[in-house]
Amino acid sequence: MKIPAVKGTRDFYPKEMAVHNFIVDGWKAASRRSGFEEFDGPIFEYLQMYQVKSGDEIVEQLFHLTDRGGRELAIRPEITPTLARMVNQQVNALPRPIKWFSVPRLCRAERPQKGRLREFFQWNIDIIGEESTLADAEVIFCAIDYLRSTGLTDKDIVSKISSRKLLAALLRNLGIAEDKLTVLYPILDKKSKIPAEAFDEMLRKEVTDTAAADTILKLMELHTVDAISGLVDLNDDARAALSELQDLFGILGAMGVGAYCRFDMSIVRGLAYYTGMVFEMHDTVGNLRAVCGGGRYDNLLRDFGGPAITAVGMGMGDCVLEILLREKGILKDDTLATKKLDYFIAVAEPTLADKAVELAAIIRLAGFCCEFPYKTGGLGKQLKQASGYNVSRTIILGQEFVNENKLVVKNMATGQQEQIAADDFVSSLKSAC
Amino acid sequence: MKIPAVKGTRDFYPKEMAVHNFIVDGWKAASRRSGFEEFDGPIFEYLQMYQVKSGDEIVEQLFHLTDRGGRELAIRPEITPTLARMVNQQVNALPRPIKWFSVPRLCRAERPQKGRLREFFQWNIDIIGEESTLADAEVIFCAIDYLRSTGLTDKDIVSKISSRKLLAALLRNLGIAEDKLTVLYPILDKKSKIPAEAFDEMLRKEVTDTAAADTILKLMELHTVDAISGLVDLNDDARAALSELQDLFGILGAMGVGAYCRFDMSIVRGLAYYTGMVFEMHDTVGNLRAVCGGGRYDNLLRDFGGPAITAVGMGMGDCVLEILLREKGILKDDTLATKKLDYFIAVAEPTLADKAVELAAIIRLAGFCCEFPYKTGGLGKQLKQASGYNVSRTIILGQEFVNENKLVVKNMATGQQEQIAADDFVSSLKSAC
Repeated sequence: MKIPAVKGTRDFYPKEMAVHNFIVDGWKAASRRSGFEEFDGPIFEYLQMYQVKSGDEIVEQLFHLTDRGGRELAIRPEITPTLARMVNQQVNALPRPIKWFSVPRLCRAERPQKGRLREFFQWNIDIIGEESTLADAEVIFCAIDYLRSTGLTDKDIVSKISSRKLLAALLRNLGIAEDKLTVLYPILDKKSKIPAEAFDEMLRKEVTDTAAADTILKLMELHTVDAISGLVDLNDDARAALSELQDLFGILGAMGVGAYCRFDMSIVRGLAYYTGMVFEMHDTVGNLRAVCGGGRYDNLLRDFGGPAITAVGMGMGDCVLEILLREKGILKDDTLATKKLDYFIAVAEPTLADKAVELAAIIRLAGFCCEFPYKTGGLGKQLKQASGYNVSRTIILGQEFVNENKLVVKNMATGQQEQIAADDFVSSLKSAC
Repeated sequence: MKIPAVKGTRDFYPKEMAVHNFIVDGWKAASRRSGFEEFDGPIFEYLQMYQVKSGDEIVEQLFHLTDRGGRELAIRPEITPTLARMVNQQVNALPRPIKWFSVPRLCRAERPQKGRLREFFQWNIDIIGEESTLADAEVIFCAIDYLRSTGLTDKDIVSKISSRKLLAALLRNLGIAEDKLTVLYPILDKKSKIPAEAFDEMLRKEVTDTAAADTILKLMELHTVDAISGLVDLNDDARAALSELQDLFGILGAMGVGAYCRFDMSIVRGLAYYTGMVFEMHDTVGNLRAVCGGGRYDNLLRDFGGPAITAVGMGMGDCVLEILLREKGILKDDTLATKKLDYFIAVAEPTLADKAVELAAIIRLAGFCCEFPYKTGGLGKQLKQASGYNVSRTIILGQEFVNENKLVVKNMATGQQEQIAADDFVSSLKSAC
């Protein structure tokens, strides 16, 4: 009986797995460079966990189930609620700031499309318990540091940065009512995703004061923090938020990644829970979804029954990233090896097959990667097999081995061959451990 | 609102994550030493996938769900059906033998107990498309190679090996009816798990011929393959199966791991799908569940709608393994670092805090792990923070930096300090990349 894979899930054959590992290893290395510690949580949590953060609408987007004990569970669509739960459980024992990262597998019951699958991996970094702008800068820096390490430059990617606090202060100053703010956020967030006329229309439907709507449109087009004061009057709240943003750009500049960063008030982020800095990274061409996004959130731990502790974090999925890395020629098919061997053992005489097995085991137990052919056909065929395996050195067992207990070791990169006494070879392996 | 974790799931705080990574990294390295390539599949598959291999009883042990499209799905309780599906999908494109490994996260709705949780990780290695006993030996060797690499010896662990083919031939020879075989397998498999009298009673209930039951009991106690022929008459099938096992022990001996291997006919494995060699690895004290188990299976790919291709593989879970590694003193709390920094930057003057951030960014962008304190309290406090972080070198920015642009670099292992011009330090980092 042939049963297919479930639509929107992913099969990682060795080739796809090599790409996956390339991405995940890079994420982990960048996290560690900036001093983040790794954590992980369960693949499923109580369904309620996701309703607390995102409301009942989220249930539609979840793979949820009822277990035998009648518990309503959901496969995690994100790891932030788990992070909040875990930190709350040990909040007094954990030294602060808490700098954690994770690379969870996540599932969302969405319609599969370009850059969005039902199953994906997302790199998350979070700093909990640090109010200063340094923490905001660390998160953005770490995301840029990773992307830069793959070979992407400021010609390829841009970090668009804004502040929810600044946006709220400016909107209030323009006479927008408090209860309109949460209605406006998702609309403003759509600016770069829909045609200008459609955005204009949506905005003016909610903001009936023409002058206020005009100003909002102009604000959305600014690309430096300093230009704001020329456009609108600043009250104290706005001035404080602006000063924080100026600090942030200052730190990012000092960190050497200023060229990747740009102020952009159209970055709002859909989620209600952001309370301060928000950012997204995009390809500069702008034809893909955001590569990553994040910001500061002050209330999440408290919403999950913990203390009010500020936090800042970001998430980067693997799907859009992989598309971008391919578009930029950084990832190409066949550039990543699925197998790498230090040694391959070929035998010139079929009677030496047992010796190949014996030697392979010695090499492996000494810590090196090694294979031998299960079927000892012609030597040429074996060497061909070796060349498909990314082998550094091929050992040939032939007449020299029978007569003098000597191996032929062939360097596959240079083609050079040398003879070496089997015993000396084995001793050299052991001393290399 | 405080929502707990779901019972039987696992939270990996950085400390537990370090243990998890220690185990998984070891599995991956051992797989690669023996030339296996990594793959992975989706976290859920159609429920039917698991029914094909294990029957309807399995449904009780699954976390299953119905998605919005009405599809019946289950979180994977094992990866072998996924392996069969994936290989079948590309069976003509994949060069053989297929040597694949995976470290899937799996879920089973079992009652949590020692060494069994509802959520666990399992190392799987499989060789598909190779009939020779060499492939059986490779699988057992690779499992031993991993355990040995952790520091476990043949005093700690034993690989108990048998053959379903041999067992079937001997039972048939003793007059056991064909339809009794599948009834007997799960009973024989219980031998080491229940008291001797209980086993005796269960066996004699199914095997009413006293002489046959006596012989079976004696066979179960043998620890060398060669002793079998002294105990029972061998027909051709038995002789062939015995010769295969003798080959296997011969190869394992030549591979240098003979001391870990023992013949044991009480190893049957519960699952119906094994058709040849079967094995389990246990702690020699024998107070834990099996550390791993596997064997040869000839019909799985065909059962999933593919061709009849033979395969051999094994699975090792992380729960029993972790208990064993702790019992043997290999894993101790606090032996694994959750964070390792190449550099920590402390500042003797609060005014130098900005310079610390700048330098940290340079160090990270050069590929090294580095942190700086968010709050520049006293130097003593900062150095204390550094010592908790597994830091190799602490850089101190003080008066020498203000006056002469010089850093103090302290080796945290030796306590030695040296002064170095900041520019020279930065150049040395860049040349190290």
